[in-house]
Amino acid sequence: MFPAVSLDVAAALKTLVLTLDLVGTFVFALSGATAGVKRRLDIFGVLVLSFVAANSGGIVRDLLIGATPPAAISDWRYLLVSVMAGLLIFFRYPKVRHLKNPVLVFDGAGLALFCVAGAQKALVFGLAPWAAALLGMLTGVGGGVARDVLLSQVPAVLRAEVYAVAALAGAAVVVMGHVLGLPSGPMAAAGAVLCFGLRMAAIRCDWHLPVARTPEEPEQEARDGR
Amino acid sequence: MFPAVSLDVAAALKTLVLTLDLVGTFVFALSGATAGVKRRLDIFGVLVLSFVAANSGGIVRDLLIGATPPAAISDWRYLLVSVMAGLLIFFRYPKVRHLKNPVLVFDGAGLALFCVAGAQKALVFGLAPWAAALLGMLTGVGGGVARDVLLSQVPAVLRAEVYAVAALAGAAVVVMGHVLGLPSGPMAAAGAVLCFGLRMAAIRCDWHLPVARTPEEPEQEARDGR
Amino acid sequence: MFPAVSLDVAAALKTLVLTLDLVGTFVFALSGATAGVKRRLDIFGVLVLSFVAANSGGIVRDLLIGATPPAAISDWRYLLVSVMAGLLIFFRYPKVRHLKNPVLVFDGAGLALFCVAGAQKALVFGLAPWAAALLGMLTGVGGGVARDVLLSQVPAVLRAEVYAVAALAGAAVVVMGHVLGLPSGPMAAAGAVLCFGLRMAAIRCDWHLPVARTPEEPEQEARDGR
Repeated sequence: MFPAVSLDVAAALKTLVLTLDLVGTFVFALSGATAGVKRRLDIFGVLVLSFVAANSGGIVRDLLIGATPPAAISDWRYLLVSVMAGLLIFFRYPKVRHLKNPVLVFDGAGLALFCVAGAQKALVFGLAPWAAALLGMLTGVGGGVARDVLLSQVPAVLRAEVYAVAALAGAAVVVMGHVLGLPSGPMAAAGAVLCFGLRMAAIRCDWHLPVARTPEEPEQEARDGR
Repeated sequence: MFPAVSLDVAAALKTLVLTLDLVGTFVFALSGATAGVKRRLDIFGVLVLSFVAANSGGIVRDLLIGATPPAAISDWRYLLVSVMAGLLIFFRYPKVRHLKNPVLVFDGAGLALFCVAGAQKALVFGLAPWAAALLGMLTGVGGGVARDVLLSQVPAVLRAEVYAVAALAGAAVVVMGHVLGLPSGPMAAAGAVLCFGLRMAAIRCDWHLPVARTPEEPEQEARDGR
Repeated sequence: MFPAVSLDVAAALKTLVLTLDLVGTFVFALSGATAGVKRRLDIFGVLVLSFVAANSGGIVRDLLIGATPPAAISDWRYLLVSVMAGLLIFFRYPKVRHLKNPVLVFDGAGLALFCVAGAQKALVFGLAPWAAALLGMLTGVGGGVARDVLLSQVPAVLRAEVYAVAALAGAAVVVMGHVLGLPSGPMAAAGAVLCFGLRMAAIRCDWHLPVARTPEEPEQEARDGR
């Protein structure tokens, strides 16, 4: 009675997307927990930073498009994955902290997944293409911004290497595919690959965005890395 | 014609809840205003911090569950109470600042009231039990987080004693009562008592949550208390 | 068939309001970009600060009154104007930074436009008069608060001269006109003029709001202007 094959494909795709989303959540939660442990927060603070770093981008996106309650507080798996990542870091920090390269790779994967998923959700809610691209980028970078604001630091994304631009590029691919009527699955994959590739290239080649020339000295806070 | 007794009880309960809610608002506003005076904000800044510390938790909760406009800007009493607390601190700071113990007790009472009320409101809006417990905690601690972020400090709740855990426990009691179908009034009272008791015990016994062992030195910002 | 004259007037008014709104957006974006360049953010960070400083007040207002998606992400002109201001500052900072007085005048104009427009939108969405006045003020000052929080600074509006009070006064005029049933156009003009005049007088006469007397020394962060 049902077209079993396409149902299977749809179910498989849905499972894939959920899996990727949870992997992205886990990786971003690792970054939040690591930052919390470094600043010597207690275990509750570390878990809060895990959840905030992993879910803030999606929560703000959902608030902006009117999708309340946000997915992060209507699907328990996001909380579970965030807490697991936080506990892992809290109890295994001395061992995990040397794994800088794997974390950067996973973080790039999380960024790629989130920017694509964020743009798609914004399109589903009827936002204009340019706004969907912005919200895709916001979904990718929002968690890191919230993490840094809670730690009273200028968000790294505002002064680090090519990071938000990679997210914007990935989201833009999804949006252009939508505008041109191309199939959404392959375009999502292309967007994620572009974002991930840009991010990895930026790390490997030490790409930086330009800074404005200013005649005055940088302020103290800027110099000591805050 | 009307069942007068139960109406009276319901009205009395409603009045009680509103009174407790406003007392909690007042106490949290005191904490915000005190922090503002200490940082030498002007009178407007002090009043803003009063309002933010007292109402941010509830406002964010209402945004997340889609209850717009939030109660804090649809019922004028929350503004009035916040401003009164702010003015009291602004003009009587030299006298009030020695009252550390009473403020801690009132703050614990505010926390207890807010976590219970926040969990109940989230349940009314149909959130899952685990999300309602989280939102109850958020209602209790959100104001303090916003206060500290505005003052460019790492939120105290992320590194202080047992505070958010007490709020989570109180909210969890309300949620468990809801799941088990127990009457909401007594469960709310039990949750508030548990939260308040935990908080008072944590202060008296100097309970702290564990911090992760890290081989490296704490960062400068962590050491000087920011 | 149509009452051509009043239509023309309405269209002209609408164009006027949109123009003023975009001018306000541009000016606030200049302030955000300038702060970002001073802190040596990269070009992406500077553009983010432009957008945030210009649009956060309106976005938060729209979230609070339930007007999702907010205007800033449903009308592309706000993004365009913000980005143009950010690029101008980024590439012309050495020349622009001496223009302190013009910027202050434009900033005052932006404040006047935003507080009036914010109060009107809140009234349209059915908020109580006192809440509409608050939201008008929030629309005017919210962008600057978000800009400073992202830069890890205590928001200037909490400790600077008469700024938020001017916005509150302008918004209050709009709200009082609404309550008294007066025509909205002239009242909006009066509110904007009052806000702008108060702000200019505060700058010229170096008006400050009072600070509470505290027996203790100000904290270090307060003294060095953070």
